[in-house]
Amino acid sequence: MIKHALPVTRAQDFARWYQTVIAEADMAEESGVRGCMVIRPWGYGIWERIQRLLDDRIKATGHENCYFPLFIPLSYFEKEAEHVEGFAKEMAVVTHHRLKSVDGKLVVDPDAKLEEPLVVRPTSETVIGAAFSRWIQSWRDLPVLINQWANVVRWEMRTRMFLRTSEFLWQEGHTAHATEAEAREETLKMLEVYRAFAEDCLALPVVAGEKPENERFPGAVATYSIEAMMQDGKALQAGTSHFLGTTFSAAQNIRFQNADGGHELAQTTSWGVSTRMVGGVIMVHGDDDGLRVPPMIAPWQIVIVPMLRDAPEDAEVLAYAKALQADLAKLSALGEPVRALVDAKSAKAQVKRWGWVKKGAPIIVEVGARDVAGGNAAVIRRDRLYQESGKLASAIVPRDELVAEAAAMLEDIQTSLHADARARLEAGIRRGVTEFAQIEAHFAEGERYPGWVEVEWAKPTGAELDAVVERLKKLKLTVRNVPGDAAAADGVCIFTGAPAVERILVARAY
Amino acid sequence: MIKHALPVTRAQDFARWYQTVIAEADMAEESGVRGCMVIRPWGYGIWERIQRLLDDRIKATGHENCYFPLFIPLSYFEKEAEHVEGFAKEMAVVTHHRLKSVDGKLVVDPDAKLEEPLVVRPTSETVIGAAFSRWIQSWRDLPVLINQWANVVRWEMRTRMFLRTSEFLWQEGHTAHATEAEAREETLKMLEVYRAFAEDCLALPVVAGEKPENERFPGAVATYSIEAMMQDGKALQAGTSHFLGTTFSAAQNIRFQNADGGHELAQTTSWGVSTRMVGGVIMVHGDDDGLRVPPMIAPWQIVIVPMLRDAPEDAEVLAYAKALQADLAKLSALGEPVRALVDAKSAKAQVKRWGWVKKGAPIIVEVGARDVAGGNAAVIRRDRLYQESGKLASAIVPRDELVAEAAAMLEDIQTSLHADARARLEAGIRRGVTEFAQIEAHFAEGERYPGWVEVEWAKPTGAELDAVVERLKKLKLTVRNVPGDAAAADGVCIFTGAPAVERILVARAY
Repeated sequence: MIKHALPVTRAQDFARWYQTVIAEADMAEESGVRGCMVIRPWGYGIWERIQRLLDDRIKATGHENCYFPLFIPLSYFEKEAEHVEGFAKEMAVVTHHRLKSVDGKLVVDPDAKLEEPLVVRPTSETVIGAAFSRWIQSWRDLPVLINQWANVVRWEMRTRMFLRTSEFLWQEGHTAHATEAEAREETLKMLEVYRAFAEDCLALPVVAGEKPENERFPGAVATYSIEAMMQDGKALQAGTSHFLGTTFSAAQNIRFQNADGGHELAQTTSWGVSTRMVGGVIMVHGDDDGLRVPPMIAPWQIVIVPMLRDAPEDAEVLAYAKALQADLAKLSALGEPVRALVDAKSAKAQVKRWGWVKKGAPIIVEVGARDVAGGNAAVIRRDRLYQESGKLASAIVPRDELVAEAAAMLEDIQTSLHADARARLEAGIRRGVTEFAQIEAHFAEGERYPGWVEVEWAKPTGAELDAVVERLKKLKLTVRNVPGDAAAADGVCIFTGAPAVERILVARAY
Repeated sequence: MIKHALPVTRAQDFARWYQTVIAEADMAEESGVRGCMVIRPWGYGIWERIQRLLDDRIKATGHENCYFPLFIPLSYFEKEAEHVEGFAKEMAVVTHHRLKSVDGKLVVDPDAKLEEPLVVRPTSETVIGAAFSRWIQSWRDLPVLINQWANVVRWEMRTRMFLRTSEFLWQEGHTAHATEAEAREETLKMLEVYRAFAEDCLALPVVAGEKPENERFPGAVATYSIEAMMQDGKALQAGTSHFLGTTFSAAQNIRFQNADGGHELAQTTSWGVSTRMVGGVIMVHGDDDGLRVPPMIAPWQIVIVPMLRDAPEDAEVLAYAKALQADLAKLSALGEPVRALVDAKSAKAQVKRWGWVKKGAPIIVEVGARDVAGGNAAVIRRDRLYQESGKLASAIVPRDELVAEAAAMLEDIQTSLHADARARLEAGIRRGVTEFAQIEAHFAEGERYPGWVEVEWAKPTGAELDAVVERLKKLKLTVRNVPGDAAAADGVCIFTGAPAVERILVARAY
């Protein structure tokens, strides 16, 4: 039996496994500040890769980056009542602007109370809407296509690293258009950008589709999401795109003169993904030895560990490792130069190897004095860590062969991780469920959840929808979305027996 | 006489000219939130270029990026008394975590008061120090070399866009070392990274040196800065690097076991540059027609304006412009692919030309139907906008010649802007001043300040230094720094007549 690197396996306790991966891979840690985490270099490096690759795609679709204030005056929220109700009002509020010392103790200075409290942005529709109303006068000013990378704060009661933290990092796109058709097209275009990005770069298979009415973003006319399946079968909403209609333009007075001289409200959209995606990567690609990072978002794709022994050969081994790194860095894989590192830290080679296994570097290369003599290197592919016998799959290959094959190997790892996750997603969606009792039976199996269920419904609204939501809630289930690529409905609504109009995915979720 | 694009010149009113450039170049605007600005795409694009290029250099010197919480518990500041005193306690404080509706009005919920107020970070030494104390146990854990790109808030009473805003964007590097020598070396290494970055990338000539004792960062043992000279002769501190000794490690208990088994406090450093640099770029490279962006940090280096006339030839002109863009984008200049844009917006070509002049795109290319027929393009170099006659310097050249010469032209613009600014800096430093009366006379000349003065002093401390600071303050002057490359002192202190120990720069400053 394989003795894995982590003290807990996915099967034993998925939640504890998740926390353990984050700790053992040095990705993040509790900060001592309620609900806020410290993102350490390996975790932040993955986020930086996500930022770089997604930013390129956001810019390629014509969007420009801006930066808007962290603080939003309280009164801005009053303009959009539905929006603030939806946010449950759990926000961090700045009320004072000075500290003072009293008897050697530092306190908030009561004389420095702000005239108007400032809310730390939970999202920026209100403050960006105010800017849009200044920028947009004529149809010639449209569309306005902007994006912002920022930190936002939502006062969460139960937090979980990357998945739900009080402060998190994200990008939020905001656009304004002359017509509803254009704004709806933009909403779907960005949903597709997210879908393709998740699949191509994160190797994360997702289902893109519209959220049901009860799961809409506060103030939105339509909300779409990409949903990924974690290895415990739960769903993770990994990105959302909202068609906001004129909700915010009416509240913020974003009006323009159309070509005929008349005045209209602009049609707006917003869309975002956050550091939550890193949590998704962990729960989709991690295994019982730690994380496996898809090469496209790995801060280091190939880590070379020189086996140093405080011996005279060390200098030669280190030089050999560095020459190998230099040759690998000249390669291009997955559209970019290969990122190769020599880990020359003063620690035992064994400790370093398992450190990189837990971090999930796609390829780990070990070189010792014997390899130098033979012109070889020992190569470990993180996605195929063990032989069938349970022995570590470390292959001695000529170093020139490694250089010749490294780019293809990285591309293969990217593809393999995606294919494995795609197969799990497909296998994890149960179709053909037509009775509510089947749903109950399906999700009655205890700790590890048996994936998602696809059913047909009549797209209820109002009180009828509330009843469905309540019924599912008792099973800890939610409607994830209406998959955009699902077959047309051809049966009856599983909740009401009325003729069905579409298919939905029902699942437990993070 | 040239009729310039801006309604105000540098000579007329430098402060108003600065605000006008920012507005006319669409760089930033007031947000409606006190002291906070909206950074618009052209301004943010320049900041993104600064981030990308500086981040590469920070990483190349062995630092890794992390992310630490926005909020710092009040008690963290109490640990470091000197630090918080120095910050004048003007900070944004979060005291509540919920809003509620009362009679249809949104108010802060008094029941949601935090047990401990949270300060919005003005800088992160305290919270990063707390992390260091968890991470550092042994000499093997050292050095720790990290950096963070983040927003910070200091409650400023008088704000000025980019130069002094309540919220601003920056990077803050934080490192911990086993020995004082190593930490001092790091402090100077990062000062040199900033100096070289400012000169190479921003074309910003700077003087690197140590700040006097009274200008040290709160808690620092030594503070170094790079100082740039604005076109009004004032100094702008454009980056700082601090040797913190054991001030913060003592407060935060950052201890390590050394190789001999003993316990020591780590030696720490911190260093940062901010969006203030964008203000420096404006005040150094701007002219009476707007900004001139050095090509290395220009979001678009070459902007092609097709002269469209709502005529049948438009399609051909646009295709010609796009083919030219594609050829330019294949080039490499200043170490990167050339960034070329076709501005196909529906506005008059004249308006677009002057828009890009004001934004300061390094090269503006206009193509119309006649150019298509002749295979030509009209090229405007933003740094040489006018002929001697005062006519716009737009040169018709074969488009293939433009493609052949564009990379060299961009490199020449980068070099020329730097050389011009360097010449101004050199001419703007008056040396050989030995009497305080000369300083008084030098700075008595009214509105536009005559640069900086280099004098020798005896490096006073304590009350003696206070007296010098007061004396200078009456003339609105400060000691900027002790230039690292200045000649050795060989005279007497201009303030006390005692034998001088070093040379200092005295100037008015932002």
